[in-house]
Amino acid sequence: MSEDPLKIGIAGLGTVGAATLHYLINENTRIAARAGRALTVDAIVARDRTKDRGVDTSGLRWFDDPVALAADPGIDVFVELIGGADGVAKATVEAALAAGKPVVTANKALLAHHGAALAELAERTPGASLHYEAAVAGGIPAVKALREGMAGNGITRVSGILNGTCNYILTEMETTGAAFGDVLLDAQKLGYAEADPTADVGGFDAAHKLAIMAAIAFGRQMDFAGVQIEGIDSVSAEDIVAARDMGYRIRLLGVAERTAQGVAQRLRPCMTPADSALGKIIGVTNAVMLEGDAIGATILTGPGAGGGPTASAVLADIVDVARGNTPPTFGIAAADLAPIAKGGADIPDEGAFYLRVMLKDRPGTLAEVATALGQSGVSIHRMRQHDHEGDAAPVTIVTHRCDLADITAAKERIVALTVCTEPPVSMRIVES
Amino acid sequence: MSEDPLKIGIAGLGTVGAATLHYLINENTRIAARAGRALTVDAIVARDRTKDRGVDTSGLRWFDDPVALAADPGIDVFVELIGGADGVAKATVEAALAAGKPVVTANKALLAHHGAALAELAERTPGASLHYEAAVAGGIPAVKALREGMAGNGITRVSGILNGTCNYILTEMETTGAAFGDVLLDAQKLGYAEADPTADVGGFDAAHKLAIMAAIAFGRQMDFAGVQIEGIDSVSAEDIVAARDMGYRIRLLGVAERTAQGVAQRLRPCMTPADSALGKIIGVTNAVMLEGDAIGATILTGPGAGGGPTASAVLADIVDVARGNTPPTFGIAAADLAPIAKGGADIPDEGAFYLRVMLKDRPGTLAEVATALGQSGVSIHRMRQHDHEGDAAPVTIVTHRCDLADITAAKERIVALTVCTEPPVSMRIVES
Repeated sequence: MSEDPLKIGIAGLGTVGAATLHYLINENTRIAARAGRALTVDAIVARDRTKDRGVDTSGLRWFDDPVALAADPGIDVFVELIGGADGVAKATVEAALAAGKPVVTANKALLAHHGAALAELAERTPGASLHYEAAVAGGIPAVKALREGMAGNGITRVSGILNGTCNYILTEMETTGAAFGDVLLDAQKLGYAEADPTADVGGFDAAHKLAIMAAIAFGRQMDFAGVQIEGIDSVSAEDIVAARDMGYRIRLLGVAERTAQGVAQRLRPCMTPADSALGKIIGVTNAVMLEGDAIGATILTGPGAGGGPTASAVLADIVDVARGNTPPTFGIAAADLAPIAKGGADIPDEGAFYLRVMLKDRPGTLAEVATALGQSGVSIHRMRQHDHEGDAAPVTIVTHRCDLADITAAKERIVALTVCTEPPVSMRIVES
Repeated sequence: MSEDPLKIGIAGLGTVGAATLHYLINENTRIAARAGRALTVDAIVARDRTKDRGVDTSGLRWFDDPVALAADPGIDVFVELIGGADGVAKATVEAALAAGKPVVTANKALLAHHGAALAELAERTPGASLHYEAAVAGGIPAVKALREGMAGNGITRVSGILNGTCNYILTEMETTGAAFGDVLLDAQKLGYAEADPTADVGGFDAAHKLAIMAAIAFGRQMDFAGVQIEGIDSVSAEDIVAARDMGYRIRLLGVAERTAQGVAQRLRPCMTPADSALGKIIGVTNAVMLEGDAIGATILTGPGAGGGPTASAVLADIVDVARGNTPPTFGIAAADLAPIAKGGADIPDEGAFYLRVMLKDRPGTLAEVATALGQSGVSIHRMRQHDHEGDAAPVTIVTHRCDLADITAAKERIVALTVCTEPPVSMRIVES
């Protein structure tokens, strides 16, 4: 074992930072054995110096300025756990990389928005490297599995359940029959959802992770702007019930896949068979499905958030740094990453779709809807009209394979018929 | 990218070798980009030079002697795909390591039987390293996830479904109700089981993988002899049905866990809840569950065998070698691996158990069995007597938590009662 300890600087001592500090200090011998050299936490920075974090921080150098810590010559590796796509977090990571240091971060927003520039900076600066296992699916070693474990594969598709808060809410809606808003309120009370839930329920957090995985999987520049994002706030209790009736579950799925027209990146609620790999994922658990030409498919599941699991990923990156395992940020040289193709949103979105139409209760309306579907090129695989008490009869339809453009056209035709009490709802069906 | 190509020598061109060769030759550019340097297959050895493997091997150096290839100064990394715990495979790996070369192997038997000595040889020889992702769970990056991705964790338990043939047979028995022998015959006809199925159905193949994972997880010397092994050949159609009735499935589980008395390694058929992570695994799929103090649990599933998936793991190791990612064989320095503790088999085996008793159809027998259980310290959680046509009434029991020793004592008492038409059957219940 090298006599020279790896000196670690940590910026941000929230839940993840405190957990990371705990393991690095209280389990130091164990982690050093795995790292092949002594490790020491040398310097830290956090807003509150007096807070009890359950760890003795008295011997550490405290900084007031995170950027000064990041560039400090006394530290060998910089751990960024401040968060946020811009501002201080970005400044610290840039400073550390520019100073030729390896950086470990859990910051998915930073990676998704500035990953390309940071990867280039890391690559042109001797000694610098960028590690972000904790940014994707928390404790699940998804980045390592994709970037290293599947390095021999031509990746065809990366998909998954990438936000535990959303999966918890959808699972609760299934179990209780409650509406989205009520379940969200409960989730906030239980600490499973933030006071401002937009990043989670709006799909942005999961979209960050999808964009990061897509960059690695397809060897292309980060294209967060190219992710089509739809959150779960519009998922209704009616659609949850309809999904169950047809053997499906609604899941917020991220899917990045190679098509003849380019790489599609879509993050949205989908219906998936209840007994499929992703349909079976319950509660706050995350799941990542990696598909490649050699392996077929492998699926990784586990805790996608929380102090311990996220610290587990941060520690793995620190051990990699200690061992000198510093692959290019997105798996191949930054200069070789394929440029972002225009028009990702125009890639055909083909598959089966779910459609729910609330019909006015008068003769002939169903026939009119069926005709509108046919005129739009949408062929019906299954159709059900449900019992109803009010003045609208819910009709649920599963289509044969078609394109989203056909579904959109069909919905417009149906609205124009004025046979519905509310606009039709559609959702992509994904056989995960 | 380095101008100097990494020259690869491959010994053994069966299914996995041919698939590895295919990707290295036909997808060379893609893999070289991931590896960060040019890769070239330089030399090969196989029993049959004339066989069509779907790849142009005309430009390669053919060797007659695998050991000569392994030590040849012209190759930079040696890939061993011959197989077998001893003989030629072992000689080649030793020769390559002694010559200071990185070795990539899919040989779980070799690792399980000689891992300790090989790890020491790799570590004391400059330039040598030993890579074996393909030896555990085929394409699933289980070794990488455990050795690197969970490097910060104190591992508490490693478990899984580690043999696809056995899981296929158990799943078929569930689906069809057929007996073990009949399903095995079908599996052999379909190519899912070998002509000599002992390594698979006897549990030895899975036990090799469990021993390898336990060495990494617990930082101890390989202890294959310490694995308690029981195959699936004694699993009866009656127990499959009884499991289903109680909400369980029978799975061949490998479990290595840290206990107060030492590390227990057990590979045997268990009952596990049908909706648990491992109970849900169907068919030839493998699953690996890794539990640690920071992460909680993460589960990896995927194809555990086959040319493509296993080649995927071999290629990942080759890319690691190309990038210089060569951690110690079992995650920490070989000299620091804990010695094998004596008496692993004496570690208490505590949990709930399933018990099936075939009672003679006469009054009072059930009371006698219940009394025998009580006398043995076994407390009943659930009991069911089933419909029966013959002269024996099947009684199935789920116990409260007790030790295997109590179950063994209870079975002896029950046999002595002479109230049964056949010896009682027991199986550990694992809440996976």
